[in-house]
Amino acid sequence: MALSASEQAAITSGKDFWHTEGVESAGIPSVTVTDGPHGVRMQAGEGDLLTGVPATCFPPAVASASTWDPDLLRRMGEALGDECRAQEVAVLLGPGVNLKRSPLGGRNFEYFSEDPLLTGLLATAWVRGLQSKGVGASLKHFAVNSQETDRMRISADVDERTLREMYLRAFHKVVTKAQPWTVMCAYNKINGVYASEHHWLLTEVLRGEWGFEGLVVSDWGAVVDRVEALAAGLDLTMPGPDAAGDQALVDAVEKGRLAAETLRTSAERVQRMIRKAGERPAGDYDADAHHALAREIAARAIVLLKNDDDLLPLPTEGITVGVFGEFARTPRHQGGGSSQITPTRLDDALTEITALSSGPVRFAPGYTVDGETDEALLAEAVEIARSSDAAIVFVGSVHETEGADRDSIDLPAAQLALIERVAAVNPMTTVVLSNGAVIATRPWDEKVPALIEGWLLGQAGGSAIADVLFGRVNPSGRLAETIPVKLADHPSYLDFPGEHGHVRYGEGLHVGYRGFDARGQEVAYPFGFGLSYTTFRYGTARASAAEGGVEVRVPVTNTGARDGREVVQVYVSLPGSRVRRAPRELKAFASVPVAAGETVEARLTIEREDLAYWDTRLGQWIVEGGEYVLQVGSSSRDIRATVTVHVAGDPARVPLTAESSVGEWFADPRGAEVLGAAFAAAAGEAEGIMSAMTANPEMLMMLGSLPLSRMATFPGSPLNAGDLDKLVEAAN
Amino acid sequence: MALSASEQAAITSGKDFWHTEGVESAGIPSVTVTDGPHGVRMQAGEGDLLTGVPATCFPPAVASASTWDPDLLRRMGEALGDECRAQEVAVLLGPGVNLKRSPLGGRNFEYFSEDPLLTGLLATAWVRGLQSKGVGASLKHFAVNSQETDRMRISADVDERTLREMYLRAFHKVVTKAQPWTVMCAYNKINGVYASEHHWLLTEVLRGEWGFEGLVVSDWGAVVDRVEALAAGLDLTMPGPDAAGDQALVDAVEKGRLAAETLRTSAERVQRMIRKAGERPAGDYDADAHHALAREIAARAIVLLKNDDDLLPLPTEGITVGVFGEFARTPRHQGGGSSQITPTRLDDALTEITALSSGPVRFAPGYTVDGETDEALLAEAVEIARSSDAAIVFVGSVHETEGADRDSIDLPAAQLALIERVAAVNPMTTVVLSNGAVIATRPWDEKVPALIEGWLLGQAGGSAIADVLFGRVNPSGRLAETIPVKLADHPSYLDFPGEHGHVRYGEGLHVGYRGFDARGQEVAYPFGFGLSYTTFRYGTARASAAEGGVEVRVPVTNTGARDGREVVQVYVSLPGSRVRRAPRELKAFASVPVAAGETVEARLTIEREDLAYWDTRLGQWIVEGGEYVLQVGSSSRDIRATVTVHVAGDPARVPLTAESSVGEWFADPRGAEVLGAAFAAAAGEAEGIMSAMTANPEMLMMLGSLPLSRMATFPGSPLNAGDLDKLVEAAN
Repeated sequence: MALSASEQAAITSGKDFWHTEGVESAGIPSVTVTDGPHGVRMQAGEGDLLTGVPATCFPPAVASASTWDPDLLRRMGEALGDECRAQEVAVLLGPGVNLKRSPLGGRNFEYFSEDPLLTGLLATAWVRGLQSKGVGASLKHFAVNSQETDRMRISADVDERTLREMYLRAFHKVVTKAQPWTVMCAYNKINGVYASEHHWLLTEVLRGEWGFEGLVVSDWGAVVDRVEALAAGLDLTMPGPDAAGDQALVDAVEKGRLAAETLRTSAERVQRMIRKAGERPAGDYDADAHHALAREIAARAIVLLKNDDDLLPLPTEGITVGVFGEFARTPRHQGGGSSQITPTRLDDALTEITALSSGPVRFAPGYTVDGETDEALLAEAVEIARSSDAAIVFVGSVHETEGADRDSIDLPAAQLALIERVAAVNPMTTVVLSNGAVIATRPWDEKVPALIEGWLLGQAGGSAIADVLFGRVNPSGRLAETIPVKLADHPSYLDFPGEHGHVRYGEGLHVGYRGFDARGQEVAYPFGFGLSYTTFRYGTARASAAEGGVEVRVPVTNTGARDGREVVQVYVSLPGSRVRRAPRELKAFASVPVAAGETVEARLTIEREDLAYWDTRLGQWIVEGGEYVLQVGSSSRDIRATVTVHVAGDPARVPLTAESSVGEWFADPRGAEVLGAAFAAAAGEAEGIMSAMTANPEMLMMLGSLPLSRMATFPGSPLNAGDLDKLVEAAN
Repeated sequence: MALSASEQAAITSGKDFWHTEGVESAGIPSVTVTDGPHGVRMQAGEGDLLTGVPATCFPPAVASASTWDPDLLRRMGEALGDECRAQEVAVLLGPGVNLKRSPLGGRNFEYFSEDPLLTGLLATAWVRGLQSKGVGASLKHFAVNSQETDRMRISADVDERTLREMYLRAFHKVVTKAQPWTVMCAYNKINGVYASEHHWLLTEVLRGEWGFEGLVVSDWGAVVDRVEALAAGLDLTMPGPDAAGDQALVDAVEKGRLAAETLRTSAERVQRMIRKAGERPAGDYDADAHHALAREIAARAIVLLKNDDDLLPLPTEGITVGVFGEFARTPRHQGGGSSQITPTRLDDALTEITALSSGPVRFAPGYTVDGETDEALLAEAVEIARSSDAAIVFVGSVHETEGADRDSIDLPAAQLALIERVAAVNPMTTVVLSNGAVIATRPWDEKVPALIEGWLLGQAGGSAIADVLFGRVNPSGRLAETIPVKLADHPSYLDFPGEHGHVRYGEGLHVGYRGFDARGQEVAYPFGFGLSYTTFRYGTARASAAEGGVEVRVPVTNTGARDGREVVQVYVSLPGSRVRRAPRELKAFASVPVAAGETVEARLTIEREDLAYWDTRLGQWIVEGGEYVLQVGSSSRDIRATVTVHVAGDPARVPLTAESSVGEWFADPRGAEVLGAAFAAAAGEAEGIMSAMTANPEMLMMLGSLPLSRMATFPGSPLNAGDLDKLVEAAN
């Protein structure tokens, strides 16, 4: 039965916060959508957004991204799908694939990386896993939602090439590879236009260019004008109900301001999503198994940043261990806001360390979470540290939440004091960080021999940390974001979070490591970095270009005594490129298990489309032909093998016009011929300055940037305005 | 007699390259305009733009700016006025006040500084001097013409605050203080619109806001469409004739596409300029006196960058001197392009050093200007250096010209080799740089004890350098642009010169030292830096705010044995400002002569308007009230005295609207009262999530950025869409 216009309008807004509107007479049920992305956050009670039905709190994206392993993300997605089935959730609101533009971003813990390829491939795997269970994903926040400050209104002012190559690239990857059921539009504006009303973004690019087949849902409260939004390509406004908005749609259709077809199409997309949700099998899940998976992923997410003299792993017996820091017993395991999960269990590191160590483990909190430096707490810690064989200090971020950006990347003074005091009396000190976004480690990390980046690891983080500390897991996590020496070094520093409604993405393409590399800056720990308890040797890399891209092979040998994983990374550059490029860009990666003493050949594929740049003159993606340099390494600044491969370019010629410059005409073979002939012909006739200039090499240099049309207006010009059309025709 | 439309049109384009069109029947003569800015470049022969009638080649702006002395600029302007009179020039095309955005800018030598205040005050003095002689100036290139690459088409994409505070500020200063006869529009586009067609720029801002009374002339060839240009506010198109364009104007008036009034007004402005030119007294000038003035300014422009163990000044007797480098006998004294002067004389340093030194002076060229490293030339130099008491090595830039940007700031390899070889065998080595824009000095400057920045110094540069080397002049020049450690450190580095028709001014306000300071970067030599042969001590600074600005007084004592000049600089910051600001901004300076052993009280005035920032919400200049910190120093990184002064703010309140956020309402006293009452009233009635959120501090944080209008659409909102107008009215 066809829906009336008002029924169509009604189902394009929600029924309440977490349900779509149904139409009983038409047999359209209401379905549940709820927050993710690292757990299923079903609101438990009316009026309390913060407490959910217990669910597995998997590692937030900041951690899962550090695994650099799509397979783990797929398994997490599958597990979440099972939990959604159990709770009858149609769509889980994730993944969040916004780039981490600044370390200050309050929601960085929900995002994967400062690199779009890493983000895109990990998120693709997650979506495939989730949707394989008949549960929809919601790819968010589309697009350029890189900050919390003024997030409902801020205009992210970003040039198109940067937009395409950096901020949209992960979305493109996920849409084309995994077809998420829904895409969630962002709160913010892009170049002055609300994402919810951005026709170019929601319709031309998302559906037209990328072939998105699903539904566009608004972020909660992102719609300013229902009619504008629908016209732009948004389908479902959440939350609801919004009777006034529904009526506005009906009125707009009646008055011809909105095409009836547009409303009908959006309503159909909502129905299609609801129908798909109806096909979801019922399900249940094993909370213990999911906890174990959460622990596995968390352990794989941990990044070993420093391990002087192989201090780690610690022996499980024969030593006394001092554990310090409130976060050891009160874990920082997730951030605040809409992704906050009420976990099924919560492991703390202190308990897990105590369980794994057969020797005595003593604890001192050292600080209070929100407190100032406390001499009594410090003294207690120092006393234990002095008399322990090994010390483990837990520190981390205090506030990270949706809704607010941070204003510093430094640890609180009380925590810095704890590190310094403990390290001063115990030479076997390990610091464990818990944080959702970058924390500055300089200069204090120079005083501690071992440093573990423990992110926000979800409900099993405490056991995962113990697994790594004692060598039950050999760490293989890698940084998905650069740790700078200081905040002011960061490419985004001068332009974050903007002011008066605008934030300029002034660093352009040079997001994250691309900016640090472009300027040749020192960093504390580079993108892609992470140590292991074993070591790896790279052999000679080989590369071959095929139609679909470039295949790279490199043998990796585990030269140590422990089994381990190496994350092989391929960075690409094109020396002499005709466009500005970062010195190296991640184009392929693989997490490769290698047993002690063995050699494995890592095989990686660079997809041809990932080599393309966005040409703003032609308005299209172009793979530039040339000798691409592939740097194969263990991090972005630890390149172990380099190989060059020739890639054939896409056919691309910018047509010459009367507005093309003299230099551009001469740079083009046809153009040079045509213009040269015109100058030669005029040389016999014309006189005066212009002809003299075209004959004088030094003056011709000054003319190189002169458009032909402008040259024709000069007195004594060898060109005549009337001849330009003929020249242009002859040249193209 | 009133002119016909076609006569009006005819005089709004030139008669040829260097003359305006006259109307004989109406008694309107043709007058001469010609290139400056550091000399009068009257073209000598037909068809040869490069050779001019001999004229004094004063130091280009890169050098004159380093004097930091408006009085010298005024005297240069007066002298140029005399030369214009002698050559019957109506308008001299200068000064060039574009900011030096990048050290790569090919035309940087024609511009003053990376700071708009220094630029504006120096250019104002120059214009006053020139125009006091009845000769017009042409303030150029209006605006944002910061590069040569693609200069005829490139769009300088820059946000309004940066545009106002940085790129327009010097123009504003000169227009309001000196009323130049003409302003020359730039070739480039600004945010996509050609400067020649930029109504906002040429009419709303230049005439409307600043009160410009003169004529807007095009840069030569900058006009794309005569009708569009006139409509935007351009008056005179150069060069000419342009019969087709004249006719297009007449047609446009007839067809109503252009107001007759617009054409008449522009023609009247041309006539007014011609009339003023007619009042110019005849004149002549003393070439020797002008050469002496050129020498005085050049000597004052030289910046002593390094002088370990007081190596300089050299004694005029009792030592043998080795002089090295082709530039010692073939001086680099000016750049290429339209400002190139055929000088009346040309001093070279080798001759002048030989004249001043009573001991033997030997010379070896060491390199050829365009050549590769030449071992024979180097060996010859080393031989002389080894057997001389002191060595002076002349090096510098090889190509700097209008029409092309540089692609490096490094010295040629052959010159670097010469420095290294000479310094290795002679511990008393001085390097003298000749360059129109920044040259990298690291790391080679660490090996030489003395370093002189000699810029492009004009025709008397050779003698001026000798004056400083031997102490006839005690150097007092200061850097008007930062010398970075390496090019990649520069704020503009990631975005210069742009590509595909656009260059984003990504560093925004952080041009030059503002960017280096904001990021806390090391530099080779900071903005404002320069040594003397004596030393100065600063006393306690005092400051008092008055209606027109802030008066600053500081005693400066010459603590050495030589008379000297100290350039006292006042940098301002406003801690806790509500807008992003550079850590310090130059707001006043004075070049103060202080005799040996004496103390002079420097008095400086910060104009109130120079404290203002451009508020993009209000669309106006705002002086923010607060405690301004004034850092008084000898350079931007050598602060000698700090004083704080309270400045009363301009009245400014951003009205609250329904689009203002909950946070903004609560930040405003009236708004907080009104909205708080509305929430309280609703608390009794409304139910559900939104009311629960407004009652929960943690959730309220997430609502802080929510616009009221958006909140009203949420289910269970304490606000009702219908009430918003009343709230807004009550709050304002």
